[in-house]
Amino acid sequence: MDLDFSKSDGLVAAVVQDYHSGRVLMVGYMNSEAFRHTVETRFATFYSRSRQKLWVKGETSGHRLAVKEISTDCDQDAVLLRVEPAGPGVCHNGYVSCFYRRLEDGQWVESEPRAYDPAAVYGSQA
Amino acid sequence: MDLDFSKSDGLVAAVVQDYHSGRVLMVGYMNSEAFRHTVETRFATFYSRSRQKLWVKGETSGHRLAVKEISTDCDQDAVLLRVEPAGPGVCHNGYVSCFYRRLEDGQWVESEPRAYDPAAVYGSQA
Repeated sequence: MDLDFSKSDGLVAAVVQDYHSGRVLMVGYMNSEAFRHTVETRFATFYSRSRQKLWVKGETSGHRLAVKEISTDCDQDAVLLRVEPAGPGVCHNGYVSCFYRRLEDGQWVESEPRAYDPAAVYGSQA
Repeated sequence: MDLDFSKSDGLVAAVVQDYHSGRVLMVGYMNSEAFRHTVETRFATFYSRSRQKLWVKGETSGHRLAVKEISTDCDQDAVLLRVEPAGPGVCHNGYVSCFYRRLEDGQWVESEPRAYDPAAVYGSQA
């Protein structure tokens, strides 16, 4: 189950897709440890580029991502996780998907309402 | 329509999803020029990290990706393109999607047949 971690400083891109709706929910990054942790626990685990450490998605919010299927691409520098998300939304801003803004006439426009109140989940600093 | 190109050496990840089937087809990378070119032409254009230049997906094969919708994520360091692909497959190895291998019992296993013969499209070196 080798992956090519050499192209992006030891990381591969990880696309997260809802197993049932097919919606793309987020993009994270994994180092080899995060990938192994994901495979072993079946909960999506990423490497935070800003905090420079492993994070199990949902460790704060409880909105964990149960991994149903893992695929890799032709050059093995990206993975696709098809998941069942716990909780009302994956995005820490309160939306079902992190991709909640659409390009319309050169502007990013919110294309859906919030699914939950992030302040109630993450506290007022969210 | 700003994006954050600062986190990955001037690039953002670009997830390509089939507009009709919802299938995730590939992950590419865009610099600001590739993103602008995509928005202006409505055909997916990436920055090749290995060749270090812009490439319009399908310029060799004719399998271009007509962009129907562009979204960005919460921290604006990734984009999602929903596309109508021309041709039988997006992957240069002959598959509908680059994500044609699934992890099963610790091994990457091809999970679908080829959709076309890559040698007929790209020549025998493909």
